[in-house]
Amino acid sequence: MNRKKPLILVTNDDGVTSRGIKALVEVAGDFGEVCVIAPDKPQSGMGHAITVHSGIRITPVDFPGAKTAFSCTGTPADCVKLGKYHLLQEKPDICLSGINHGANMSLNVIYSGTMSAALEGALEGIPSIGISLCNNRDMVSLEASKKVAKILIETFLHNKPDNNLCLNVNVPDIAFDEIRGLRFCRQGKGNWKEYYEERESENGEEFLWLTGKFENFEKRKTDTDLWALENNYVSVVPIHADMTHYEELEKVNRWEVSWNER
Amino acid sequence: MNRKKPLILVTNDDGVTSRGIKALVEVAGDFGEVCVIAPDKPQSGMGHAITVHSGIRITPVDFPGAKTAFSCTGTPADCVKLGKYHLLQEKPDICLSGINHGANMSLNVIYSGTMSAALEGALEGIPSIGISLCNNRDMVSLEASKKVAKILIETFLHNKPDNNLCLNVNVPDIAFDEIRGLRFCRQGKGNWKEYYEERESENGEEFLWLTGKFENFEKRKTDTDLWALENNYVSVVPIHADMTHYEELEKVNRWEVSWNER
Repeated sequence: MNRKKPLILVTNDDGVTSRGIKALVEVAGDFGEVCVIAPDKPQSGMGHAITVHSGIRITPVDFPGAKTAFSCTGTPADCVKLGKYHLLQEKPDICLSGINHGANMSLNVIYSGTMSAALEGALEGIPSIGISLCNNRDMVSLEASKKVAKILIETFLHNKPDNNLCLNVNVPDIAFDEIRGLRFCRQGKGNWKEYYEERESENGEEFLWLTGKFENFEKRKTDTDLWALENNYVSVVPIHADMTHYEELEKVNRWEVSWNER
Repeated sequence: MNRKKPLILVTNDDGVTSRGIKALVEVAGDFGEVCVIAPDKPQSGMGHAITVHSGIRITPVDFPGAKTAFSCTGTPADCVKLGKYHLLQEKPDICLSGINHGANMSLNVIYSGTMSAALEGALEGIPSIGISLCNNRDMVSLEASKKVAKILIETFLHNKPDNNLCLNVNVPDIAFDEIRGLRFCRQGKGNWKEYYEERESENGEEFLWLTGKFENFEKRKTDTDLWALENNYVSVVPIHADMTHYEELEKVNRWEVSWNER
């Protein structure tokens, strides 16, 4: 059987002109037909935002290596919805999001526009990968990440992922030869130690900037994405949208509730 | 011991002037000292967005029933971070988010600004409740939701919740007397059947509006929030930020990976 080439939807949260998405499209082109739908401006820290209070404008753009490409005024999650419900004639075979300039391991997944796009793909039945490089500078080298992306896409397609599979992939910021391999793991527990810096704008208005340092709460555990990255592995965490805290559910089920007294 | 009154942080995603947050502050005032920190404009559908590319401006506001109140240019999650790291002298005892004008059950939790604020609270060690009414009209009656909020806060404080507990509470849009009680449950599986409506702006620009209908994928299961709401219960789902898909993790751990061939 002469199976046609896979249709690959590529998006990101740094915007359609970022270096990361160009690198990802370059790699994706080796595996199938690429369609790009990406935000027209950076959307980092947008979480799983979707546009519900306003309309979305779409603009066709030129994108070397892509068969079709659009930028839009929406969020990363919007881009995937637009692909599935409006712009594409058929469902993509896989959805790729990234390469993000900045880490999305551990708790960061819930703030991540990159991962919201990938998760949106999986929710729509498109197996998805979000790829992030643990360095948020614009001009960082993407060579190692490109090689990792190639191995990942190959591995992904070879192993016939479930339609609802979403992988959160983080690449340590080191040379490819120093990377020890892929490591499938769970989302490690950690959080930002944060504070706000007081600054003043040119016209004298005071405002606050969020700043902080990430802390690993499970330093001795070796099955987390935090451990993998600290030990020069690429971390690969399958994620889903079920946020139920089942242990707490057992506890609250034993709560005293005085509803009937009312 | 003469324990002082609990400090209650109240926020939302519909903005500081919405009717829902006023109703919640009114109820919260019966239980402790209220501090309001809320967005200065509606933030629905913002997911777990945080402000990282710009500064945040804070304005003290008058808010009947609150000891202190601020509006800010940030997101719901920002509001809680601002409370913990900047505006409050001590950690709040509980954090309340809502009352949201619109349902946040099932998958909607990942798009919800209301729940991102509550989850942010729990991540910062403040037990939290997000409360949503299953009706997104502005002028809806909030009487039943206020009574439910009162029972919930009482139940919450009485049962001494874990510091990381976050409850996603949805109230069916019916009279209080018709509500059958609280039901602790898991997040049901479902999704939007969506499409985009093409519209034209006044100056002739084309844009797209997201529209759709929610579908319950587990109609026969009685342990979900979707079932609870359809059967006139208040749904109460404990949530957390661990998005690891553990079943898929077992599967991908058996994948063939050809990393060493490179």
